[in-house]
Amino acid sequence: MPLNVAQKLIQSHLVSGEMKPGDEIGLRIDQTLTQDATGTMVMLELEAMDLDRVKTEVSVQYVDHNLIQADFKNPDDHLFLRSACQRFGVWFSRPGNGVSHPCHQENFGKPGKTLLGSDSHTPAGGALGMLAIGAGGLEVALAMAGEPFYTRMPQIWGVKLTGELPEWVSAKDVILEMLRRHGVAGGVGRVVEYYGPGLATLSAMDRHVIANMGAELGATTTVFPSDQEVRRFLRAWKREEDWAELVADSGADYDVHDEIDLSSLEPLIAMPSSPGNVRPVREVAGEPIYQAYVGSSANPGFRDFAVSAMMVRGRRVHDRVSYDVNPTSRAQLETLARDGYVVDLLHAGARLHQAGCNGCIGMGQAPATHELSLRTVPRNFPGRSGTKEDKVCLVSPETATASALTGVITDPRTLGIPYPRVEDPDDPIVNRETFLAPLAPEAAREVALHKGPNIASLPPFEPLPDTIEVPVLLKVADNVSTDEIMPAGTRVLPFRSNIPKIAEFSFDVIDPTYATRAKQASGHIVIGGNNYGQGSSREHAALGPKFLGLRAVIAKSFARIHSQNLINFGMLPLTFVDPADYDAIQKGDVLRLTDLHKALAEGNELTVENVTQKRSFRVRHAMSPRQVEVVLRGGLINALKERLGQSERPLSQAS
Amino acid sequence: MPLNVAQKLIQSHLVSGEMKPGDEIGLRIDQTLTQDATGTMVMLELEAMDLDRVKTEVSVQYVDHNLIQADFKNPDDHLFLRSACQRFGVWFSRPGNGVSHPCHQENFGKPGKTLLGSDSHTPAGGALGMLAIGAGGLEVALAMAGEPFYTRMPQIWGVKLTGELPEWVSAKDVILEMLRRHGVAGGVGRVVEYYGPGLATLSAMDRHVIANMGAELGATTTVFPSDQEVRRFLRAWKREEDWAELVADSGADYDVHDEIDLSSLEPLIAMPSSPGNVRPVREVAGEPIYQAYVGSSANPGFRDFAVSAMMVRGRRVHDRVSYDVNPTSRAQLETLARDGYVVDLLHAGARLHQAGCNGCIGMGQAPATHELSLRTVPRNFPGRSGTKEDKVCLVSPETATASALTGVITDPRTLGIPYPRVEDPDDPIVNRETFLAPLAPEAAREVALHKGPNIASLPPFEPLPDTIEVPVLLKVADNVSTDEIMPAGTRVLPFRSNIPKIAEFSFDVIDPTYATRAKQASGHIVIGGNNYGQGSSREHAALGPKFLGLRAVIAKSFARIHSQNLINFGMLPLTFVDPADYDAIQKGDVLRLTDLHKALAEGNELTVENVTQKRSFRVRHAMSPRQVEVVLRGGLINALKERLGQSERPLSQAS
Repeated sequence: MPLNVAQKLIQSHLVSGEMKPGDEIGLRIDQTLTQDATGTMVMLELEAMDLDRVKTEVSVQYVDHNLIQADFKNPDDHLFLRSACQRFGVWFSRPGNGVSHPCHQENFGKPGKTLLGSDSHTPAGGALGMLAIGAGGLEVALAMAGEPFYTRMPQIWGVKLTGELPEWVSAKDVILEMLRRHGVAGGVGRVVEYYGPGLATLSAMDRHVIANMGAELGATTTVFPSDQEVRRFLRAWKREEDWAELVADSGADYDVHDEIDLSSLEPLIAMPSSPGNVRPVREVAGEPIYQAYVGSSANPGFRDFAVSAMMVRGRRVHDRVSYDVNPTSRAQLETLARDGYVVDLLHAGARLHQAGCNGCIGMGQAPATHELSLRTVPRNFPGRSGTKEDKVCLVSPETATASALTGVITDPRTLGIPYPRVEDPDDPIVNRETFLAPLAPEAAREVALHKGPNIASLPPFEPLPDTIEVPVLLKVADNVSTDEIMPAGTRVLPFRSNIPKIAEFSFDVIDPTYATRAKQASGHIVIGGNNYGQGSSREHAALGPKFLGLRAVIAKSFARIHSQNLINFGMLPLTFVDPADYDAIQKGDVLRLTDLHKALAEGNELTVENVTQKRSFRVRHAMSPRQVEVVLRGGLINALKERLGQSERPLSQAS
Repeated sequence: MPLNVAQKLIQSHLVSGEMKPGDEIGLRIDQTLTQDATGTMVMLELEAMDLDRVKTEVSVQYVDHNLIQADFKNPDDHLFLRSACQRFGVWFSRPGNGVSHPCHQENFGKPGKTLLGSDSHTPAGGALGMLAIGAGGLEVALAMAGEPFYTRMPQIWGVKLTGELPEWVSAKDVILEMLRRHGVAGGVGRVVEYYGPGLATLSAMDRHVIANMGAELGATTTVFPSDQEVRRFLRAWKREEDWAELVADSGADYDVHDEIDLSSLEPLIAMPSSPGNVRPVREVAGEPIYQAYVGSSANPGFRDFAVSAMMVRGRRVHDRVSYDVNPTSRAQLETLARDGYVVDLLHAGARLHQAGCNGCIGMGQAPATHELSLRTVPRNFPGRSGTKEDKVCLVSPETATASALTGVITDPRTLGIPYPRVEDPDDPIVNRETFLAPLAPEAAREVALHKGPNIASLPPFEPLPDTIEVPVLLKVADNVSTDEIMPAGTRVLPFRSNIPKIAEFSFDVIDPTYATRAKQASGHIVIGGNNYGQGSSREHAALGPKFLGLRAVIAKSFARIHSQNLINFGMLPLTFVDPADYDAIQKGDVLRLTDLHKALAEGNELTVENVTQKRSFRVRHAMSPRQVEVVLRGGLINALKERLGQSERPLSQAS
């Protein structure tokens, strides 16, 4: 059967399951990417697994998110990550090297490989013909330890590109057109694969723009073929030897079909506050703006900055506008400086920031109250900029820069200047000396992890006892979210590398006495309503209560990811067989589960004895045998740690 | 009598007093400089004065401190400052243009002029032969309104420079030598004036380094003559017409004498955590460092960055070191980029930040826990970097960069490379188009102040009533500091532009119920011990309690600046004639002062009736007739506002 690019990538990495859309498949992971906001926990997980050395072909740790050092915590994290990279055989990209996704494409990405990253924009790697997927920290940690990555086989969505982009229209407008057509959930359960004659006019970095923001469609990932454009890119970055052709077989088909005539596109804008709220720029032109912002992993290319520089050359940014220029990689910033574009941008009034994520993830550059901000970033979710009730719009560099010059939203076609078409250079400054290569295994074993006072090793996770007899410390209603289980924000997030400390914020929103009571009790249970654990996938919402002694949650129903996280960290997600039993339980009741190991192995129902009320009720679990094994051992880390000493069989095949 | 440079500057601007060291003198102010951290309050004070237009020759508002926009507050301030500049006839330097002091020297400073700035490093202006003094916000606001600036006539401290700096030793080592010799209080009550043959080898920006950090000696200011070096500087910056010669008369003498043979100096370092803790670098060489930092107003010159760039060219910064490069002005960054130095710095691993104060005032770039940070900044007070128990050292760019390359404190003479001597270029890129010029008066009157939700106009200040009958809401012990009256820190400082909001933090450290009780009472008194109001000069410590109804403080004794601030904002600083009366007063007692206006005008003692205890006691005031007038009117702002409608006489000469 002729295969498309996505199917070829999956087939060549399939270790379990069948390529039938919806079925669970296991994939071998060749490369991983972690950034500092999620990477500190990944490294602590590797430490907790007693991993000696990563088993991937390449793993790279970037420092791009937490570059604002208001106190010791972020710089301590940077030193910790450097030491962990040296210890575990991971490349370390020092602060200032730039954003993970473009840096990875420039220095490490390889056609035909799989890439798992603890960042939702990891799919940008699809620009080089990789299967690049974003995942939670523990999943990436497991991939670094050599485990397969499990996901459901996606539908492959073929998007045929024809024609050529008109002047003043660029790659950002292509993905905005996809979002205009399909909205922010249009790609759920799908891999987007672009093909067709229009591809030839899109550079590898243009494709990065489109693949990166495929995440905004909700897609599992986006793939492009590896063709002569990819070869040209790798040649420019002095590693043509990493190129391999990867194109769809003649006659290959797709599960879903779409087509875009590039020549029909015009400048588009996603209005506040959703990437799916897309309109033509001309329809909203004239609105005064406070900020125009060029950069981020959603417009990281040399051309994105060079076009902007040529647009402002000899002109001046409107004096009300903050024109924030955020270079995406050190090497590109060097090249832009060498070629004179940095002077153009500065002279016109740009604020030139260090290479990194910066304002794209709310690290500085927040807009003023009630003021419009036009950004080339991938997302404009409410408040993500740091300003409550912000008004952030997503646009191309051409539209952002045109608007910076005029002070109002401006369709760049109306500027009345010649379109400065720029190609990515064939001789960028390549700078891999500022990446710290992995140490040799012997030297690596000598490295001690460098931990500041805010970095605490993961606590040990005890195996599930055979009998649990613990009190109910909390009984909550329906739809409790992970934001209620573990809040985010500046009060809590600085403790991301410190489970004992962050645990104290568990359920703080619902019951501020929970943490204290949990520490006094020796083990406890939480009772939940329907859809328990909805919202963010953050694993801290499982880790925090776990640290405080949570053994099981009995709920009417669970949100999928949180239930998975409970299992991964060794807690039981149980549901009431008769939802009416929810009503009978009181806070403070002592519950007892006996013969757990046997009961979990033998069936999917258990009896719970309410010792206080002297009555019993039945609960159910939905775990696979593999998951039962995980929870019995006290979580994935224990399971893996135990096995690493024993064999090399992937966990799914363990007894 | 032959005069030195400082005496000439003072004499030509003297409007009151005599030039006798220790006597109060009034000085006409030609130029003012405000930065964003202090400038928002200055602008609110101008608004409260109903000022139509500044009366200085040049006033410039910079945005260099609060460049990290974590939420709406800082960008709102920027828009407010821009609108206030347009309203009041002030130049506006947009965010990203750089640090006030070097920007002012490059674009506005003029030999022979006076400059008052709401920033303690304003004395940097002395490099051009100006009398440049740092002061509190309200004093700068008054200068902008045309009022004289009052200070005590300083001693003039002549420092003769001979010889020439050896290789690897630069201007920073000259001021570190002064600090080594005289400590952080060596300059109190003095103006430092440099002269002698050694001057010819110091560029105008080298002199800036020395004048800027004269603040660390505690000096009122530092002055240099305006000679051919100053002329060369102004010519390079395309304004030779602003040059005027200003040198000491032949035979001029100084009140105090000192001499430095430049050729005898070596690389110096101020160790943690005082600028006065100076040692030769060679004595502490070899200690591992986390950070090396180039930039700030204490090393702002082109050469400081270019020398660093040439040192790292073809080399790589140690992989543990965060090498933070903080350009000090947009124009200089452009020139450094044009001349290729930016590529050198980046390629070696530098983190290149936007032009501004940044880490120098703890806005990012905090060092890791227990790690050494070598900085070219002016101050290393404990915790100023943002990290508690930090270990910040002050060094030259040569020493910082040498240490960045090796990863340990390094005397640059031991690097074994040729010394890259660089002169400031004769053709820097001049960029005044990114400064917003004052509007014409008619257009200015049409401008409305742009106020975000965190920017509140100053409340009206009522004149002092003739009778006060109010309760004692607080009775405090000796040595209460302004940090206890109005705390600083990230919890409180964001409300710097919002008196009603910041007032709620008044005395929070001592008695969290104070603000609530004060709002319920209609006026109140605070009873203090000895040395009431010591510490920081912050005017918010007067403004906050004032807003809550404070009428008078009766204390055993006052710290000078806080007592002045109470008067400036219309409150009575009174002392017990018999300190034993302090003991008798109870919190809650109602005190009555009658016939206040007559009593204050006629003598320096008053009778206070303790209505609750039915007894009386005597208090004293130390106010001059001018100050009595100010307090009766409800403060300086009212006094000035009233008079602005009436005459042009300076306040000190008003009836």
